Parts: sequence; structure tokens; C-alpha cells
Amino acid sequence: MTNWAEIDRLAKSWLKEAGERIISSFSTALDIQTKSDANDLVTNIDRDIEQFFIGKIRESLPGHRILGEEGFGDELKDLAGIVWIIDPIDGTMNFIHQQRNFMISIGVYEDGQGKLGYIYDVVHDELYHAQAGKGAYLGDDKLPRLEKTKPETALIGMNSTWLTSNRYMDPSETLIPLANKVRGTRSYGSAALELAYVATGALDAYITMRLSPWDFAGGKVIVEELGGIVTNLKGEPLDMMGTNSVLAAKPGLHEAIIKDFLNKGEK
Amino acid sequence: MTNWAEIDRLAKSWLKEAGERIISSFSTALDIQTKSDANDLVTNIDRDIEQFFIGKIRESLPGHRILGEEGFGDELKDLAGIVWIIDPIDGTMNFIHQQRNFMISIGVYEDGQGKLGYIYDVVHDELYHAQAGKGAYLGDDKLPRLEKTKPETALIGMNSTWLTSNRYMDPSETLIPLANKVRGTRSYGSAALELAYVATGALDAYITMRLSPWDFAGGKVIVEELGGIVTNLKGEPLDMMGTNSVLAAKPGLHEAIIKDFLNKGEK
Repeated sequence: MTNWAEIDRLAKSWLKEAGERIISSFSTALDIQTKSDANDLVTNIDRDIEQFFIGKIRESLPGHRILGEEGFGDELKDLAGIVWIIDPIDGTMNFIHQQRNFMISIGVYEDGQGKLGYIYDVVHDELYHAQAGKGAYLGDDKLPRLEKTKPETALIGMNSTWLTSNRYMDPSETLIPLANKVRGTRSYGSAALELAYVATGALDAYITMRLSPWDFAGGKVIVEELGGIVTNLKGEPLDMMGTNSVLAAKPGLHEAIIKDFLNKGEK
Repeated sequence: MTNWAEIDRLAKSWLKEAGERIISSFSTALDIQTKSDANDLVTNIDRDIEQFFIGKIRESLPGHRILGEEGFGDELKDLAGIVWIIDPIDGTMNFIHQQRNFMISIGVYEDGQGKLGYIYDVVHDELYHAQAGKGAYLGDDKLPRLEKTKPETALIGMNSTWLTSNRYMDPSETLIPLANKVRGTRSYGSAALELAYVATGALDAYITMRLSPWDFAGGKVIVEELGGIVTNLKGEPLDMMGTNSVLAAKPGLHEAIIKDFLNKGEK
């Protein structure tokens, strides 16, 4: 019988320690490199923090497997058993440019089902966390369940890039009408932050065209624990082993966004 | 001879007190009303905070005049003498939806020249402030001067609305190419926050189509003190008595955005 409360305690203590390592790094020079393109950035700190978590998990929780953004974890073919899905710094561009608005994101899954979710804003020492079936919290404050809402009063997270011509969707019949219908749009440059905001209701929805499992694994557990809905833009379950479009939203709003806007133009 | 150091001391103590009033308001029900349209929101707290500052200024600094967003100040025909330009809550929609990402913004001008600037993130107790000629600060930390930069490595603040058809500018030849050229765009829903981010370098530029003097009066003093450039989208000085488009940016980048992007399509 897995002791989730003990795993939760360990995860929180490691998050705290990792946060302190990141804060310390602000006074040192970053080693910045690019990955898939000139704007896909990685630093020595992303790598250091991923390796920090891997070391802790291997030492304390042998048998747990790890899927990490920077590739120091296991080579997974499936999500059998207990798997930690880790983004050591979600929002690396913000980390580099802003030294804020980046998050550590962790989801712990068992046989593909989300069990624990963490999004940690280290700069403001704000931890969003959930244990499936036991409620979701910001720090010590229990978050209320998400209530139904409608597009016309919604504030949604969506990067402006998706309103310009792009390879994933024609925005003219979909996201542009949506952006014009809602009360406002915001863009923070960190999927984990935007999912944390969906959890607290600071955003009513978050929409993006392409995320990897480590970007949403933690946030999905937290948002779903509160009654929010997290799918791809067709309303299908997310593929936890591949890239996905993502729509995370309050009930009612999730359905309305797909039915009244997105269904009009996916390529 | 005006004692600016004493005015600065008073302004900071009032900001602190106003911040505490706003935090206290989180536990009470907001009275929300609309102004020019359904998404132009105002609350009883916006009004309360503006009246708080006006009461303090009238009591301690008779002769100073006040231009406030909510209209409780003076009816000004010019900026002669010392004028406080106040936005009690910049980012009211964020205040209502998020209880964060809103700012108190104050600029103190003498005969139209910016002398003191304040942007206060009350939730995180972060005060961005400057006295013209004496440096700009985030809290106690002196901010470095802004260095020249180029579009291709820039992170810019710009709401996605401006990439859709709008009455101010055809985005197809201007902001859409700019959004595609830069490293990334962000949108926070508070002009004062975005100007504060330009001051710290968290954003390299901020672009918007329509602001009133209270939205930018504080930020303009802070950004200019650091060598940043704040104009309308034609590169002209801002009209401190009217509405303006606004481009605030690092040197080099400001010139490049106007010359290579904006000059191609203002209506």
C-alpha cells in the first residue's frame, strides 16, 4: 500500500530545498543554451534542479520512475507504476529575463492516474498543491471548487502568438472570435503558472497549442481536483506520453469554448 | 523651494497605508460597477483609495492639485504647479478576478515635468519608485540603467486584442510582424505593472493603444529615470491631459519598433 502522505511530505521538502537553490542562483552567471529553436531556452539551473530531484527520488523512493523535461530521468515507454513527471523550471524564458513568473512543476502519477500535483512559485514562496481526492491548496489555504462560468465574463490565458497565422489552427474563426468575446486575455509565459491560476480562479481558462507532459502534469492534478476540466482542444483526454494542445477551464466554460469557438477551425 | 524628499516620504507612507486598506478589503464583498463599457470596471475600493489619497494630500500639502482616475480630484485645465496623478487601482479587472496583478500608481509632476513616480504591488509588498535625477528603485534595491536591445531577443508586453482587428491600427503590417519577430509576448492586464516590468527589464518594451494619464504617470517617471523611452506610437511625447497610445521601451528597441514595425500602418 503506497504511503501517499509520506511521498507528499518528501515532495514538499524537496520543492522547498530546490527553491532555495534557484534563488541562490540569481547571484551567479547563467549558462544559457538553446534547444529546438532560438527561443527554446535551457540553463544550467534547469539541469541542476532536475538532477537534484532525481537524486532525491532515487535515494528515498527506489522503484519510482521519472520523466523529466531535461532528459535525465528514465526512458519511459509507458506510465506503469509510480512516475514523477518533472519540469524543473517551467517558464525558462521568464526565469532568464525576469527572475520571476517561473515555476517548478511536478505531477506524481500511478499507472497513468494523477495522484499528487505541485506548482511552486519559488520567488513568492507560493505552493499550489493537491492530492487526488483530498483537496487542493495554495499554501495552507484550501481552494474552493471551480464554479460554472461563461465566456462573456471570463478572463483567459492565451498567448498572442495563437492569434496570428500558425501551423496548428486558423485563428480567424476560432481564437480571434473567442478573444473578442471574453472579458480579457492574459499571457504569463508559464503553462504551470497559468494552470495554477485556473486552479485559483485567477484565470477562468487557459488555452495553448502545444505542451509536453511535464508542462501540465502537476497542474492537471490540481485543476481536476477542483472540478476543472483539462483536455486537448478537441475535448479528448491528454496523452501523458506525448505533446498536446491543452484547454484547462471551469465547467461550462470548457464546453462552450470547444462547441462555440474551437470546433470551427482545427486544422 | 519644494521639499521633494519630504513629499517622497509622505507618498511612501500613504502608499503603505493604502495597501493595507486594499488587503483588508479582500475579506469583504466588492461593489462592482461598469463605466464606459461592460469590461470597464470600477469598485468601491477604487473610489475609497482615491479618496484616501486626496484626503491625505489636501491635509498635508495644500496647494497641490490632483488628477485621479475616479474623478474625485480637481478639474484640471493644465498641469501648472504640483499635480498628483493617481490611479488608485490600476488593473481593476485583475483586482476583481485575481486579487493580484493590480497596482497603485502615482506620478507627481511639477509644471508638467515628472518629479516622483510610484508603482506599488500591494499583494507582494513591492514598491517601484523613482525621484527624477536621483535614481529608481525596487524596494531598497537601486535599479540599473536600461541597456540597448533589439527586437529579436526582446520580451514585450502587448495584449492579444491588438493583434485582432481594432479601431486604432491595422495589425497585419505592424504588431503581428512584431509579435512574430520578438522572442516572446506577455500580457498582465495592468499598464502600471507592465511599466514597472520595463523599468526592471522583466519586459524590454510595453505597447498599448489607449491609456489615460493616471495609467502611465508613475511609470513614465520611473522608466525615464532609467534611460527608457516613453512616447506614443508615433514617437511623440505623451499628452499628460489626454488619452494616448503608449510605447515604453529600452533605447534602441524603441527606435526599431517604430521604424521597422509601427510606421507601416497607423490608421
